Amino acid sequence: MSQQTMKKALEGYRREVEDCFAELLQDEAIPDSLSQAMRYSLVAGGKRVRPVLCLVWHELLGGNRDAVMDFAAALEMIHTYSLVHDDLPAMDNDAVRRGQPSNHARFGEPLAILAGDGLLTEAMHHMLASEADPPRVVRASREVTWAAGPRGMVGGQVLDMALNGAPPETLEQLKTMHGMKTGAMLRAACTSGAILAGASSSDLERAGSYGAHLGLAFQVADDILDIEGDEAKLGKPVGSDERMRKSTYPGLLGLEQSRRMGRDLAEQAVQTLDGYSGERAEFLADLAKYVVQRTE
Amino acid sequence: MSQQTMKKALEGYRREVEDCFAELLQDEAIPDSLSQAMRYSLVAGGKRVRPVLCLVWHELLGGNRDAVMDFAAALEMIHTYSLVHDDLPAMDNDAVRRGQPSNHARFGEPLAILAGDGLLTEAMHHMLASEADPPRVVRASREVTWAAGPRGMVGGQVLDMALNGAPPETLEQLKTMHGMKTGAMLRAACTSGAILAGASSSDLERAGSYGAHLGLAFQVADDILDIEGDEAKLGKPVGSDERMRKSTYPGLLGLEQSRRMGRDLAEQAVQTLDGYSGERAEFLADLAKYVVQRTE
Repeated sequence: MSQQTMKKALEGYRREVEDCFAELLQDEAIPDSLSQAMRYSLVAGGKRVRPVLCLVWHELLGGNRDAVMDFAAALEMIHTYSLVHDDLPAMDNDAVRRGQPSNHARFGEPLAILAGDGLLTEAMHHMLASEADPPRVVRASREVTWAAGPRGMVGGQVLDMALNGAPPETLEQLKTMHGMKTGAMLRAACTSGAILAGASSSDLERAGSYGAHLGLAFQVADDILDIEGDEAKLGKPVGSDERMRKSTYPGLLGLEQSRRMGRDLAEQAVQTLDGYSGERAEFLADLAKYVVQRTE
Repeated sequence: MSQQTMKKALEGYRREVEDCFAELLQDEAIPDSLSQAMRYSLVAGGKRVRPVLCLVWHELLGGNRDAVMDFAAALEMIHTYSLVHDDLPAMDNDAVRRGQPSNHARFGEPLAILAGDGLLTEAMHHMLASEADPPRVVRASREVTWAAGPRGMVGGQVLDMALNGAPPETLEQLKTMHGMKTGAMLRAACTSGAILAGASSSDLERAGSYGAHLGLAFQVADDILDIEGDEAKLGKPVGSDERMRKSTYPGLLGLEQSRRMGRDLAEQAVQTLDGYSGERAEFLADLAKYVVQRTE
């Protein structure tokens, strides 16, 4: 599959996920202001990589896309809630997100906190509304709640903000932090999609390994782009890691070795796909390669 | 059952739930500071009425207490998360909760936000770890995520803070707000316990009706206690509703009619128990009566 074909497929998945958002949260039972604040951040854009990974792993293992669309959309709601809370004045204090006012900058801090809480609870509710087999729904949802929780994303944010009194200083600590903060949810996106398709334990292990490697590769590439990326292409300022004195892979390893680490991780992600064939396997392999080659 | 026997039973349930907390969140995979902040608010006390309602309805319908202990504990985690976020400076700005520094007063705002997020995600994870039949776990968890979400507790908080631009001014609006903010979770505590025991649709309807009436009765009684309660017995200052210019039942209906409304609601809760017998049914009936008679 050419990189262009992969990007076109990615765009197709992304659009389908976003179409699904259009109907979400339009509910008279939700107070207007809350529904607006929740939708504002949900439809604000993004790569939608978590729902896409869930859908593609589900299809790779023979599942039907429509059956997991709501579950996949829930993953993006969880990602969105985490961005809304991370941007809060008490946290990263970001007034801008994707070129627009961040949620609290637009709706005020109280509503932003509640919009985040609302997106998280609504996501859980959507996952449980999945029409798949209940034992699979329970297992897939457990993967996600584990990854989103204190051993995953929430804990990773604590480490990233050095709220534990110890900012990451070694490569191992940096990997642990990213593994929790972003890796766990990317991994769960793959494994939940696989579980909902009735994955064998070997399929499940591969889905997890692919997601974990992809997640780390993505983070390494992100750190590199923050140094040598093009602000116009990225749509965000570069050099912020250095300004914020954040630990990064290039900071610990140097640029050249970080590039090699990114390529190795992408290669390991590709290797987990050995034995699968067809469009979805090609898509996942090309996505892993693209993650470390992208310039935006 | 005498009121004293009921209170003793309540105390027994409460202790059992709290014993279950002791083992929770003791996990090396959770950053220390986060685990501490989560536990701090979880073990800070409280009536534990949500887990108790879940356990008692479960037992009333023939279920086994041990099988739902984790699920019940999760309900208290969700309640605790909501208190931690409600106390935040941007929300009610309460520096004291149950006579102790509130979570953000003790751990700082960033960690308090994340402790709330951690309690919510951990709660979901615990609900899904229930050993009950998966279809029942899915249904029971859906009841809870609905009640905790934007159509329930989160939405009710938006209405209570008048973030929607319209503070409750009529009895109907006040009931809607409380029904969402506290009633929905009390109702879900009863229905989830019932569902996990394999409730029939008639059982489920009664559990829901009992919880909804109990929740409203509790709120009416709370508003009355804020006017004529004894600060020493209550353990918190009275008169805060008037100072905060909050809409209350006595404010809309007068004290006498509010008392009657509370008694009627308790009576309706008791009536939903018609046809059940035994210790649990008596306990639930006495609990409903106690809610509107209590002085603390």
